[in-house]
Amino acid sequence: MAPLTMQPDAPTIADTKAEAGSIAIICGGGSLPAAVAEAVARRGRRPVMFGIRGWAEAAVIERYAHHWTAIGQAGRFFRLAKTENCSEVLFIGTILRPPITQLRLDWQTIKAMPGLIRAYRGGDDKLISGVARVAESGGLRVVGVKDVAPEVLVPEGVIGRYRPSERDRADIARALEMIAALGPFDVGQAAVVADNHVLAVEAAEGTDNLLNRIAELRRLGRVTLPPGIGVLVKAPKPGQDRRFDLPSIGPRTVENVARAGLAGLAVTAGSTMIAEAEAVAAAADREGIFLVGVREDTA
Amino acid sequence: MAPLTMQPDAPTIADTKAEAGSIAIICGGGSLPAAVAEAVARRGRRPVMFGIRGWAEAAVIERYAHHWTAIGQAGRFFRLAKTENCSEVLFIGTILRPPITQLRLDWQTIKAMPGLIRAYRGGDDKLISGVARVAESGGLRVVGVKDVAPEVLVPEGVIGRYRPSERDRADIARALEMIAALGPFDVGQAAVVADNHVLAVEAAEGTDNLLNRIAELRRLGRVTLPPGIGVLVKAPKPGQDRRFDLPSIGPRTVENVARAGLAGLAVTAGSTMIAEAEAVAAAADREGIFLVGVREDTA
Repeated sequence: MAPLTMQPDAPTIADTKAEAGSIAIICGGGSLPAAVAEAVARRGRRPVMFGIRGWAEAAVIERYAHHWTAIGQAGRFFRLAKTENCSEVLFIGTILRPPITQLRLDWQTIKAMPGLIRAYRGGDDKLISGVARVAESGGLRVVGVKDVAPEVLVPEGVIGRYRPSERDRADIARALEMIAALGPFDVGQAAVVADNHVLAVEAAEGTDNLLNRIAELRRLGRVTLPPGIGVLVKAPKPGQDRRFDLPSIGPRTVENVARAGLAGLAVTAGSTMIAEAEAVAAAADREGIFLVGVREDTA
Repeated sequence: MAPLTMQPDAPTIADTKAEAGSIAIICGGGSLPAAVAEAVARRGRRPVMFGIRGWAEAAVIERYAHHWTAIGQAGRFFRLAKTENCSEVLFIGTILRPPITQLRLDWQTIKAMPGLIRAYRGGDDKLISGVARVAESGGLRVVGVKDVAPEVLVPEGVIGRYRPSERDRADIARALEMIAALGPFDVGQAAVVADNHVLAVEAAEGTDNLLNRIAELRRLGRVTLPPGIGVLVKAPKPGQDRRFDLPSIGPRTVENVARAGLAGLAVTAGSTMIAEAEAVAAAADREGIFLVGVREDTA
């Protein structure tokens, strides 16, 4: 293949050689692990799936070289990752912070415990950096989706047929500004703003619950704006380690935005993951809502 | 009565004469209008109740001189207030922003519409200052609970048998700090923080819904902290006009805090209204949770 016909993002043979090792992908639930593994493989790297029991889906995990694991099994993970020639590790998919009493910890994890206990108390940001330190103590480089599978991230610009109005753009800016102000409190990956009113701020409940709440408040007459006003905005928490726990959207997000009577959703470009991108765009068109990737500095 | 035996807050004959007029109390729902009217009368002023149809409770309104009214009837209200010799007006009780299409507006209200429409779009703070301007255009002074019925506000210090722990105090400080950071966005009269994690931020849903959400997330295993950790904190929005829409608590708040598995609740002293104070203290003792009035600068 002549260099002129290559896409800028496609890996060259030299790239692939430079990052010779396999990539350990620690997988929670949902369809993002499949999208990431596929992108990694397409770029010429070998994914080794480590499915977290109770969360990861067998159909996704078993498509590639794989092992099943549990949280707290750091020692076993490092042995397997070494056997599989992994040089890097990536965390992807849904997983909720397990009750500390339900963890079964192996020796290498226990050695790291003092730091992890502090991390458990300190909010998501600190938990995540604690996990990263444990991973790096085992000699693996922690990478993010942006490093190895950037096509899984939402690009800048409108996706689908519908576009945000001027009012929608003002609502998006206000939501991003508020999410930025919440950064020090390790909270708020999503918010709903409608005609300049903040209707909801996400904390422990997750985006689907947040959108169901708006639908319910509307049904009860506690949100009285006419349908078609208001925006769901998702953004990573400011200061968040971008290698972990980026916000994500899927077809269900779009359906819930429509059910909540909003005009559309805006997510930060380059830092929001999208599962089943084509299905998401189709759902937005079908539901008559907009979907836009915005720059984080839009506020 | 000799001056030495008087309580500092009790009105003197001179006070009562200086503020000779009656007080128009525009009443929404709940038990706070009754508590305020009672305190006003006890201090030697005459309350005139203006019950908002659909919200105010007849049993409360009809205990005093009263009229029934609707939102948007500013002209009629001013005529009645004048006839009743009112010099001041106070807004109290629950009322949700009505759909703008459902308002029946009289002439004096319509004259004020350009400002009110801007207010409708601008968030609660702006709506409130718009309403205050309309009231003052009719020659009435807008007063707050603090001015005429301060005994309805939560005092500083622990109420009931249980006290917040060191961890609870840290959670309270964090919540107050976050609420302060949310000030510019006209949102967040309440939040739940548990062992340094922000679990919920209140926007359009109201405190009872917020607490039900925590109970539900706990049931679903999405909040995994053991019961007895975490605090509900309520505070006025920073910059809020203290004559309107102060946060309030009642016996149900305490019951919902207990059902959510939290350790207790903290509210800002002197700026949170309490309905049925004795019932609230009894409920806190019965449920085994603490209730504390904290200074707003605790953060």
